[in-house]
Amino acid sequence: MKIVCSKNILVKGVNTVSKAVPNKTTMPILECILIDASTDIIKLTANDMELGIETTIDGEIKERGIIALNAKIFSEIVRKLPNNDVTIETDISSQTIIKCEKARFNIAAHSGDDFSYLPDVKKENSITLSEFTLREVIRQTIFSISDNDTNKIMTGILFEINGDILKVVTLDGHRISIRKIELGNTYPSQEVIVPGKTMTEISRIIGGNIEDKVDISFSANHILFEFDETTVVSRLIEGNYFNVNQMLSNDYETKIKIAKKDFLDCIERSVLLIKEGDKKPIVVDIVDDSMDVKMKSQIGSMNEEINIIKEGRDLQIGFNPKFLSDALKVIDDEEVDLYFMNSKAPCFIRDENQSYIYLILPVNFSSIS
Amino acid sequence: MKIVCSKNILVKGVNTVSKAVPNKTTMPILECILIDASTDIIKLTANDMELGIETTIDGEIKERGIIALNAKIFSEIVRKLPNNDVTIETDISSQTIIKCEKARFNIAAHSGDDFSYLPDVKKENSITLSEFTLREVIRQTIFSISDNDTNKIMTGILFEINGDILKVVTLDGHRISIRKIELGNTYPSQEVIVPGKTMTEISRIIGGNIEDKVDISFSANHILFEFDETTVVSRLIEGNYFNVNQMLSNDYETKIKIAKKDFLDCIERSVLLIKEGDKKPIVVDIVDDSMDVKMKSQIGSMNEEINIIKEGRDLQIGFNPKFLSDALKVIDDEEVDLYFMNSKAPCFIRDENQSYIYLILPVNFSSIS
Repeated sequence: MKIVCSKNILVKGVNTVSKAVPNKTTMPILECILIDASTDIIKLTANDMELGIETTIDGEIKERGIIALNAKIFSEIVRKLPNNDVTIETDISSQTIIKCEKARFNIAAHSGDDFSYLPDVKKENSITLSEFTLREVIRQTIFSISDNDTNKIMTGILFEINGDILKVVTLDGHRISIRKIELGNTYPSQEVIVPGKTMTEISRIIGGNIEDKVDISFSANHILFEFDETTVVSRLIEGNYFNVNQMLSNDYETKIKIAKKDFLDCIERSVLLIKEGDKKPIVVDIVDDSMDVKMKSQIGSMNEEINIIKEGRDLQIGFNPKFLSDALKVIDDEEVDLYFMNSKAPCFIRDENQSYIYLILPVNFSSIS
Repeated sequence: MKIVCSKNILVKGVNTVSKAVPNKTTMPILECILIDASTDIIKLTANDMELGIETTIDGEIKERGIIALNAKIFSEIVRKLPNNDVTIETDISSQTIIKCEKARFNIAAHSGDDFSYLPDVKKENSITLSEFTLREVIRQTIFSISDNDTNKIMTGILFEINGDILKVVTLDGHRISIRKIELGNTYPSQEVIVPGKTMTEISRIIGGNIEDKVDISFSANHILFEFDETTVVSRLIEGNYFNVNQMLSNDYETKIKIAKKDFLDCIERSVLLIKEGDKKPIVVDIVDDSMDVKMKSQIGSMNEEINIIKEGRDLQIGFNPKFLSDALKVIDDEEVDLYFMNSKAPCFIRDENQSYIYLILPVNFSSIS
């Protein structure tokens, strides 16, 4: 095999597919990037068997062939080369020579024979989103997946398509995040659970432009993302997702409207008093048109009053401050509405047409005076 | 005590003195910042007994007093406060209240009685440098101090004043870095060894403007830096520095002139083949007007040819690549001159008037073909 392509194109391609290279594995071939120049195009592929990424790059094929190179070494070398054309050449002994200007590297290569190509996913039920929308919806939900593998389903993100609505849901047992997106077209109903890791890597690869589109296709076991020159295939998490609708409610006894930034800043100040690993609730005390936020720990105490607009009853309720700030951080509205039933029932942060719903369970607290 | 000052001024002051707060200590008072408002000015001080920093901040003293606050907690709180006036108030129980807008923190304070103020250094033999020059000379020499405490003197930086020349020297047993600076005035001879940590912290605090000046004074055991509203006092390292002059030589058998960036880029590529913790030499092979740079490891091999202008004999010599790149990185010249005697003798990188001299010992290498 002998190919020539510009350094910058090569770096971009290698960075893209590297996201599917596992950090730790006992199989050296999984640590590789496959360069496939066996046809008229140059394809780079990495595949950890859960997540696979493939991208095509522009370049000249001087001699057809396939080779697998250790991803870490290959990407480090490529990144440090001069900004010029790079030649990658393999001889029969599967030594690979990487040349650029006067620099010449010689590294060992693996045969491409053991490499697992991406599974074939039929592109039947495809939906289209802008890169911007996909990246936003990942950011707005992924923080409330569980990182604990004991319940695999909680480590995933639910994609539910119903008519022209895409609903994206995550939950971790203490909170639920829901975002709804209008698709513009009507599609057959679909419900898949995508591993959180897949979505994290996707949001690192896609550009995030509102004009650039991502096509998403589904099969029984896989989800396929296509954008630019890149294809990402991920296994789905098997099983049925939780019945989230039965956990939601529109009833409330107390509703407050609050300036998001004031509330978020206040929470971020309060957590300064929490030592790492410690669990301390933030207590909010709603009285008339004012909310007193309180925190107390070994280090000291803080309190802060924030103006609100209240409907309904006064209330004192405690929360894990991180759960509140995680949700507030991903809401773009300057003012948010919080709905409460009582100090034992979940709090809902949602907008009027419920394009977002964040459910947060309260925690017990000993009254802070 | 009760003082009021703007958040931004407080943050700047706290950041400055925090550099003298030790990470680990068994004495809680050393982890504190002292707020001294016992006279007409507000002084912040931190002192780990090796290095002490004091700075004055603008503010209003409503009630005189002195208090010591845990530096980490205090600085985190101050940084997160709204951009407005901050009130710090202590009652008799030495609880401290920090207020800003509607936020109110209550944290424990220490009495200032146990706090060690900075030692008094007589300002007799002072020299003046620009902040820019001081920061540059630290950056250009500090990388070759030893981080091994077995020879304390090697962990320090030599400041040697002779007439109107300041010479700054570091060495670690494998290399020597020397920078000479013209002071503009003539001063009495001085020779002090300043702890590397002091100089690192100084370069983090000073602004680096060429117009802003730093006054440096010396006593038998201390060095004092004064700039802006800030005073830094550090203990000196006791003992006599190495006789560096007898390690230098102007003789050479081979001299090369090389484009610094080409050489540096090449070295940085070569080290990609070295696994962490591994020691592999970079071998340079000087033949006529070309230098071949080679590296070989388990991962693979690389070589690169660089154009040079050579005087004297051909030579093959090996180096620790990091020692070469450390020196090249801090030289601003686009072309550098390297002087060699033979493959066992030190290499010198120096400019014509010897405003900088970098001595690097070679390493053994098995010939790489």
